[in-house]
Amino acid sequence: MEVMRVLHMNKGNGETSYAKNSTVQSNIISLGRRVMDEALKKLMMRNSEISSIGIADLGCSSGPNSLLSISNIIDTIHNLCADLERPVPELTVSLNDLPSNDFNYIFASLPEFYDRINNNKESLGFCRGGGESCFVSAVPGSFYGRLFPRRSLHFVHSSSSLHWLSQVPCREAEKEDRAITADLDNMGKIYISKTSPKSAHKAYALQFQTDFLVFLRSRSEELVPGGRMVLSFLGRSSLDPTTEESCYQWELLAQALMSMAKEGIIEEEKIDAFNAPYYAASSEELKMVIEKEGSFSIDRLEISPVDWEGGSICEESYDLVVRSKPEALASGRRVANTIRAVVEPMLEPTFGENVMDELFERYAKIVGEYFYVSSPRYAIVIVSLVRTG
Amino acid sequence: MEVMRVLHMNKGNGETSYAKNSTVQSNIISLGRRVMDEALKKLMMRNSEISSIGIADLGCSSGPNSLLSISNIIDTIHNLCADLERPVPELTVSLNDLPSNDFNYIFASLPEFYDRINNNKESLGFCRGGGESCFVSAVPGSFYGRLFPRRSLHFVHSSSSLHWLSQVPCREAEKEDRAITADLDNMGKIYISKTSPKSAHKAYALQFQTDFLVFLRSRSEELVPGGRMVLSFLGRSSLDPTTEESCYQWELLAQALMSMAKEGIIEEEKIDAFNAPYYAASSEELKMVIEKEGSFSIDRLEISPVDWEGGSICEESYDLVVRSKPEALASGRRVANTIRAVVEPMLEPTFGENVMDELFERYAKIVGEYFYVSSPRYAIVIVSLVRTG
Repeated sequence: MEVMRVLHMNKGNGETSYAKNSTVQSNIISLGRRVMDEALKKLMMRNSEISSIGIADLGCSSGPNSLLSISNIIDTIHNLCADLERPVPELTVSLNDLPSNDFNYIFASLPEFYDRINNNKESLGFCRGGGESCFVSAVPGSFYGRLFPRRSLHFVHSSSSLHWLSQVPCREAEKEDRAITADLDNMGKIYISKTSPKSAHKAYALQFQTDFLVFLRSRSEELVPGGRMVLSFLGRSSLDPTTEESCYQWELLAQALMSMAKEGIIEEEKIDAFNAPYYAASSEELKMVIEKEGSFSIDRLEISPVDWEGGSICEESYDLVVRSKPEALASGRRVANTIRAVVEPMLEPTFGENVMDELFERYAKIVGEYFYVSSPRYAIVIVSLVRTG
Repeated sequence: MEVMRVLHMNKGNGETSYAKNSTVQSNIISLGRRVMDEALKKLMMRNSEISSIGIADLGCSSGPNSLLSISNIIDTIHNLCADLERPVPELTVSLNDLPSNDFNYIFASLPEFYDRINNNKESLGFCRGGGESCFVSAVPGSFYGRLFPRRSLHFVHSSSSLHWLSQVPCREAEKEDRAITADLDNMGKIYISKTSPKSAHKAYALQFQTDFLVFLRSRSEELVPGGRMVLSFLGRSSLDPTTEESCYQWELLAQALMSMAKEGIIEEEKIDAFNAPYYAASSEELKMVIEKEGSFSIDRLEISPVDWEGGSICEESYDLVVRSKPEALASGRRVANTIRAVVEPMLEPTFGENVMDELFERYAKIVGEYFYVSSPRYAIVIVSLVRTG
C-alpha cells in the first residue's frame, strides 16, 4: 500500500465525504483546546517582543475542520494580545497534509476565513489590517520528514493525524546483510488483534517508534528554541495494544470483511494481507521516543476517553450508556459513516470500489450491535511539548 | 465580472485545457530566462553569506508551466553556488495564484519535482539532501495585495500574469463627493479598440496604474532591501494602445462575437457590456508607476516581439512570414486554442457555456485569415527591478 497516495479523507461534499462526516475529529480539536491555549499563552509570555509568529497545522485534511484549528489558534493569539495590551504580531500560518489532500476545497473558503478573522480582530479593538497580518499557505508533503525551513516555526499543532503511520509495518527478516521485508502474519485481521502473533505487535510498535522519532527530529529542526507543539491523536491508556479502546474499530471492520469473505464476495487472502497503517500508542511509548530524540521536554501529557461518536466522557464514569436497539443501530450507522470517510480510500485499492457500500452496511450493523451491549470509546492522547535549547 | 472567481486557466488535462495549450506562456518564460539568471547572479553575489532564500512565483497557474519557473530559478541558484564554490542555501519557494486556481494539479507532480531537483543538485557535486533544502508551498490570493510576511522574500518572479487587472475598468463619474461607477461605453468591443471612446482608454490606463502601484507597494513590504523582481508580461512598444501588438487578439475575438450576435446566437448588448480585465502597458507607463511608488529601481527594461504562436522574432525582421492558406488556418486554430484556454472561464458567465465551441471555431477561422495576410505578434515586456534601501 502506498500510504502517500491512499491516505486521504473521502473527497467532495457527498454523503460519504469527510466534509460531512468529521464531527468526531472536530470534537477532538475542541478537547485539545485548553492545552493548546495554555501552550500559546506560555509561548506569548516568553516572547514579549515577537513581531512575527510561524504556525503550522500538520494533517489539516480537507473539510470544515481544516481551518478550525488555525482559527482557534489565531483567536487565542488575538485575545492574548488584547489582554496583554500588545500589538498583534504577523502570523504566518502553514496548512500541511499529503499531496493527495484536496487543498482546492480549503482554498475556496479562504476569502471568508480572512473576513472572519479580521472582524474578530476589529471587535477586540485592533485596527483592521485587511488580512495583512495573517498569511496562510499550504505545504503539501509528509510530516514524517522536513517540511519547513530551519527555525521558521514557533507553534506546531496536529490533531487526529499522528496515529497514521508512514507505511504499513512489515516483518523484517535479517538475511546476511540485507533486510528483507515481508507481509505480517495477521490472518483474518487488519490491525493488531488478540489473535495477532507477537511479531505483528512488535512490527507495529517499531514502525510507530521509527515514524514518531523522524517526526520529532524534523520538527526539532524547524522550531525555534522555546517553540511549542500540541499534538492530539488516538492512542491507548493501557500497555496492552489489544484492548477495546486501542483496536476495536478495526476488529469490527475485520468482522465485516470476514463475513463477506465467507460468502465469497471478497477473497480471504486479501484480508490476511491487508494491514492498516495505523497505531494507537501508549503514553509509555511516547515518553520513550521523546526522551530518545532528546530535543523536546513534555509540558503536559493527558489521555482522555471520547466515545465513538465523539462525545467527551467524564473519566470517572466508566458505566454503560444504556441505548435502545434503534438508538444503538443509529449510533452504529453514524460511526460507520465517520470511519468510512477516513478509511475508504485505503480499502478500495485492495477490495474494490464496488463492495464498499455493502461493506459499510455490514459494518454499521456490527457496530450498532456492539453499541447495544457496550459503550465503546477511544483514548485521545494530548501532549504538549517544548523545544528545549 | 468577479475577476477573483473567473480569472483562472481552463482546468484539467482535456483538449481545451490550459495544461495542453500553454506553449506560448512557456516560451515567454524562456524569453525572460537570461534577465532572470542575471538578476539571480547579482542577488547571490551581493548576499555571499546568505543561508536561506525566499522565492515567490506570482501567477503560477496550473499546468506544465507551474513548476517550470521555479525549476529554472532553483537550477540557476544551484549552478551559481557550484561556480562560486558555496553551499546551497535553504530555498523557501512559494507558488501563488488566485484561490480558484487548480493547486491540486500542481501538488500531484511535487514528489517528482523534488526528485528532479535533488538529482540535479547531486550531479553538480552537492551531497543529496533528500529534498530538505527546498520547501515548496502554495499561497492562494491576489498579488494586488499583501501575500507574504514583511521582508520574507529575496526574489520574486512573475510571467504572463501582470497584464491581468484586478477588476474590469469602469467609468467613474464624480457626483458630489461620491464616485459612481458605470460600465464603459465600448460598443461592439471587448477591449480598447480604435473605435473605443477616449474615456475607455483612460479608464483602462487608470485601472492598470492603480493595480500596478498596489502590486509594487505590496512587494516592497515583502522583499528584503536589495531583493529583486523579474516580471514578464504582455505590453506594447508604442504609446498608442490600439496598435496590433496591443490589442488585436481581442479585436478579432470581438469580431467573432459580433458575427454571432448578427445571427442572433448571442445578444449584442452583452458584447457592449463585456470588457476584458486586461491591459497591455507601455514602458512609459511602467516607468511612471515605478517612479511614483518609489521603492524600486529599474535594472533592466526590455520589450521583445513574440509571434502569436510563441516563437521569438529577431527585432530587426519585421517582414511578413509567408504562409500557405492551410498553414495560416492551422496557425489560427492553435492560437484560438491558446486563447480559449485562458479566456473561456471569463467569457462563459456572460455568453454561456453552450456557445463556446462555436465562438472559438469562428475565432480560429478569423485568426487564420489574419495569419494569411499578416504576421501578428505580441510585445513582451521584461522588467528587472531592485528593492532599494
